[in-house]
Amino acid sequence: MNFADRLDAATERVRTPALVGIDPHLDLLPDEYAAARDPRVPLAERAELVERFCFELLDVVAGRVAAVKPQSAFFELLGSDGVRAFENVCARARSLDLLVIGDVKRGDIASTASAYAESFLASGEHRCDAVTVSPYLGPDTLEPFANVCAREDGGMYVLLRTSNPGGGAFQLHGTPALWEEVAGALERLGTDLIGNSGFSSIGAVVGATHAAELATIRARLPKTPFLLPGYGAQGAGADDVKPAFCDAESPWRGGLVNSSRGIAFAWRKDSASHPKDAASKALDRMIADLAAALDIR
Amino acid sequence: MNFADRLDAATERVRTPALVGIDPHLDLLPDEYAAARDPRVPLAERAELVERFCFELLDVVAGRVAAVKPQSAFFELLGSDGVRAFENVCARARSLDLLVIGDVKRGDIASTASAYAESFLASGEHRCDAVTVSPYLGPDTLEPFANVCAREDGGMYVLLRTSNPGGGAFQLHGTPALWEEVAGALERLGTDLIGNSGFSSIGAVVGATHAAELATIRARLPKTPFLLPGYGAQGAGADDVKPAFCDAESPWRGGLVNSSRGIAFAWRKDSASHPKDAASKALDRMIADLAAALDIR
Repeated sequence: MNFADRLDAATERVRTPALVGIDPHLDLLPDEYAAARDPRVPLAERAELVERFCFELLDVVAGRVAAVKPQSAFFELLGSDGVRAFENVCARARSLDLLVIGDVKRGDIASTASAYAESFLASGEHRCDAVTVSPYLGPDTLEPFANVCAREDGGMYVLLRTSNPGGGAFQLHGTPALWEEVAGALERLGTDLIGNSGFSSIGAVVGATHAAELATIRARLPKTPFLLPGYGAQGAGADDVKPAFCDAESPWRGGLVNSSRGIAFAWRKDSASHPKDAASKALDRMIADLAAALDIR
Repeated sequence: MNFADRLDAATERVRTPALVGIDPHLDLLPDEYAAARDPRVPLAERAELVERFCFELLDVVAGRVAAVKPQSAFFELLGSDGVRAFENVCARARSLDLLVIGDVKRGDIASTASAYAESFLASGEHRCDAVTVSPYLGPDTLEPFANVCAREDGGMYVLLRTSNPGGGAFQLHGTPALWEEVAGALERLGTDLIGNSGFSSIGAVVGATHAAELATIRARLPKTPFLLPGYGAQGAGADDVKPAFCDAESPWRGGLVNSSRGIAFAWRKDSASHPKDAASKALDRMIADLAAALDIR
């Protein structure tokens, strides 16, 4: 089934657009995983610890959110052993009925782009359901990803307007702003991948930190699922993401709101709790806050 | 030593700006490596074959060029086993005194960008001398890479104006064109990393397929080393890259001209030769053509 439709069915089941980022930042891991940041420990052992931490987090969130978003960078930091942990985390998430959005921000030209798309979206041990993609190289470099999405029922989220402080320097350049050009390109490409849900499998990354712009971007891209980073640790709250959502009947439809550190490392602000319990409570809170803001009952 | 200076010394030794791309495209491998593209063969075995093919290519080019550019995508296609092959190829290249430019086109925000920079540029088994980086997320997302470059004597090449047909869609957007904004950002960031050679360790990727623009871009960025893809298979010739070079005394200075398929897969157009011999002859030809165009004696 088309990725957009699979995502729609999965969010319908959990009735929340919450997405949990799996960013195993070595410096933030609980003490029991301290060896993961010790350069004297062999990489394979460090990667195993990271994997175990992520598995625990997956157990906490399974059944409560539609999807998780593992961040490739923190796995790649441990080299090929880390990449194996990434693969294992993706496989474990899928076995727990979580959709996997690989946050890999890849992008390249022609057959090289195809190789990246196949790496992450084609059948195999390291398969994701969707990936994030960077558009700087041009619309023709998004096509190989879209082709693999079409064949494999995969999805992609193109970087559009990001949550970091300097995100506007290039993304707002020109008149119309660059992001509008990128929006046009991803919308054209996504037309062929619109599912029964009315959404396309080609989505956009739109920072939750730009609440005012979010409404403009939603109006420009009515059929595009959004991936909304910036919630929690980066400063955005539940009210900030409201403009991304527009279905009164199913108010969770239209986007995924990502929190990474706010869930995985909640124990750092809640030292009375075990890290798993702290993550669980933080996720409860996020789901409740989103439900209140979006009027989900 | 500063990356720009190491690169300068290495090109001085070989007296050519030729750069060999290591893109082990499975479909193009010689018959003796056919099992590498067979999905029934375990990934570890397929990755070993790819590694062996790359090692042979490194033997051909060592001592004749300053650097090689392994393309991560074709290794990642084989999952973590492929990434291990990438690490081994980087290590082998460095042991042969070749500088390694990891063509990874990574980019992300804040601590995630730092994780990518550390992955490829910090000490460890999988270390490169420089990497390619994508700028769409904004100038603040290039800083973590620059910081690691400064600490580790590494280099980075920021995507500026690429060689693919659709490269202009976003890169030429606005007035001034987006690439000029990116150029300004990488130039500012590179000021602190200018070495004794007069060049910065922060370079730019500029397609060799845009000969007319190349002169403009060189004038705009006099101290930026260029990485010039598009030579050979993508259609650019030795005369097209001339505007990147501007030192009459040392005419090889200013950029690296990359050929990937034109060297690695030269045997496909020269079936009388063994693949290694065909690659060697193709590299001879490229070096001679560049020498003629740039007046290297």
